[in-house]
Amino acid sequence: MGEEVKSKGEEETWMVESKEWYLLSYAPHGVPTTDHLKLRSVCLSLSPQSIPHAHLAIETLFFSIDPYLRSRFTGNLDGLYFPQFELNQVITIFGIGRVKVSNDSKYKEGDLIMSASLLVAEYCVIPSSEIFGKIDAASGISLPDYLSSLGVPGFAAWLGIEVVGDPKPGSNVLISAASGGVGMIAGQLAKIRGCRVIGSTGSDEKLRLIKEEFGYDDGFNYNKETDLDAVLTKFFPNGIDFYLDNVGGKMLESVLNHVNKYARIPLCGMISQYNQVWTERDGVRNLLNMVGKEVRMEGFLLKTHFNRFGDFAKEMEGHMKEGRVKSKIKINTGIETFLDSLNSLFSASNIGKVLIQVKA
Amino acid sequence: MGEEVKSKGEEETWMVESKEWYLLSYAPHGVPTTDHLKLRSVCLSLSPQSIPHAHLAIETLFFSIDPYLRSRFTGNLDGLYFPQFELNQVITIFGIGRVKVSNDSKYKEGDLIMSASLLVAEYCVIPSSEIFGKIDAASGISLPDYLSSLGVPGFAAWLGIEVVGDPKPGSNVLISAASGGVGMIAGQLAKIRGCRVIGSTGSDEKLRLIKEEFGYDDGFNYNKETDLDAVLTKFFPNGIDFYLDNVGGKMLESVLNHVNKYARIPLCGMISQYNQVWTERDGVRNLLNMVGKEVRMEGFLLKTHFNRFGDFAKEMEGHMKEGRVKSKIKINTGIETFLDSLNSLFSASNIGKVLIQVKA
Repeated sequence: MGEEVKSKGEEETWMVESKEWYLLSYAPHGVPTTDHLKLRSVCLSLSPQSIPHAHLAIETLFFSIDPYLRSRFTGNLDGLYFPQFELNQVITIFGIGRVKVSNDSKYKEGDLIMSASLLVAEYCVIPSSEIFGKIDAASGISLPDYLSSLGVPGFAAWLGIEVVGDPKPGSNVLISAASGGVGMIAGQLAKIRGCRVIGSTGSDEKLRLIKEEFGYDDGFNYNKETDLDAVLTKFFPNGIDFYLDNVGGKMLESVLNHVNKYARIPLCGMISQYNQVWTERDGVRNLLNMVGKEVRMEGFLLKTHFNRFGDFAKEMEGHMKEGRVKSKIKINTGIETFLDSLNSLFSASNIGKVLIQVKA
Repeated sequence: MGEEVKSKGEEETWMVESKEWYLLSYAPHGVPTTDHLKLRSVCLSLSPQSIPHAHLAIETLFFSIDPYLRSRFTGNLDGLYFPQFELNQVITIFGIGRVKVSNDSKYKEGDLIMSASLLVAEYCVIPSSEIFGKIDAASGISLPDYLSSLGVPGFAAWLGIEVVGDPKPGSNVLISAASGGVGMIAGQLAKIRGCRVIGSTGSDEKLRLIKEEFGYDDGFNYNKETDLDAVLTKFFPNGIDFYLDNVGGKMLESVLNHVNKYARIPLCGMISQYNQVWTERDGVRNLLNMVGKEVRMEGFLLKTHFNRFGDFAKEMEGHMKEGRVKSKIKINTGIETFLDSLNSLFSASNIGKVLIQVKA
């Protein structure tokens, strides 16, 4: 006990106020609100004595806002099968932080780290085993880029194109949510492979962006189209060889009416489906086409492929340095924006990768 | 002209009466009837002079009745994408025949041949290029077995298990239409691989058969079950690793709620769906589970894999000779039974592989 005795003044210098988002109740369907996720402010001691062995006190800097997060507070396991957040606990997220206090000799104060287990809080204490990697501040790559092209969406796009899907040069490729975090990168990777790439987006502004910034051959705004079948006929007169599905539902069904023999459909996510319980989701009625066209459809998650992260990062850094892959990033400022930032993924409003910069 | 002059008597000895089924009108949905497929009798000359170069006159012996046939007279291309039969033409089928007259030196009268392009007729004249292979009458294998274990359903089952699906020993395997032509063989092949195999069937008699004759570990009669989810929970307490889908629809959807990580679902056909236009088919609402469980679903057709037929036949003959693979065959007698034989595939009535023996 004696060693832990400190003067009130010493302890107080280590106290920080930390705002954090915790889960009040599950939201099985619909748009989550402050009935489900709540912001609160706590006082936290970062004194070296209060940090357990092999743990780090982290000041959070950037959070990666990704659609899978929505599936972690539905209260049921169907769909993505990510573990559910626990009630009354602070939720966790992929992001970048700075080490404030280290109780692990591999890390020191000031180190920039990435982790999939940051708390959605201004400060947190986590085991050093949860650190995904250190960031070299002299790399010339910005912190937001580490969470976009080199982060969750970039890795997902790379897996969909390079590992799971493997479209051949000249393939006719469709990418849904084409201006989203995953889609914008996937489209550029497919172009690098020599494919003809068409994007589906939710606004004219996004449509302009994928053509002018991301090098898509063409695309459409699905919110302006009443007949998806006619659109696909127009943009794919020779059929679809490859579809990276980020949305599911009606788009997937329509695509299955236009697939070519041996088409590949990596399933990266189904953003149109996350806010509904599965029995209320759009059913895909034409899976029989997969038999006649001998289509392969395959879901994938990043975790399974973490052993490829090094290959991915090396390749992607090369693309970025050569200017072959660009990224559009929407940075919302302040941890207070978490709920709105998350919900923006499911509206037509956001473009590109969404991040939160925790402090201005 | 002079050489073709024959006496009326000579020509008449080559004339045969041949009953044949032709397509009167397409049947987009529902059970086809004699409004769609009609039987008629024609007179056909089999005189050597009337057989073109590199053609054969064939007396048909056995027809293989397979579900894909239904898709060839819906009048639209969705689903299996087999070419549609033409109106007022005799329909074609996979079967066995005997050469009556040969105008190709590779074949002689009496040869037993297999072809995917026999007419559904008692006699027909076809190009020798359409012959799939000769049958060795001394092989010890019966003609019906050539159309079951060694024919369309056997090859489909082998592709689903050995090529497309590749379940590991110990895998928890579900096979739908488990006592049907494909299912009965697939279940036995999965057992040979050391899997735990459960079958879904449509009657108690079929259920008994798959357990007692085909060596399934267990199974259920889906017509007796009101809650597919509960049935799958009961038979797959550790989840489903592999599902050979022969039916589609509600069964596929239920399976997707019970799949394990990395489950494989080869799509062999969807017999529950063939009698409906696609917009009226059951939609599968939980494809998102394929993402979370990283499931691969893949359709396949036999034609793509014909280069493997030799490997298949050799392996299957070995299984048959060692008694490891058995086959239940329902033989209907007389070409008149064609329509009823076809429709029996889509009812709960038939068991095993359905053939027609053209003449008693």
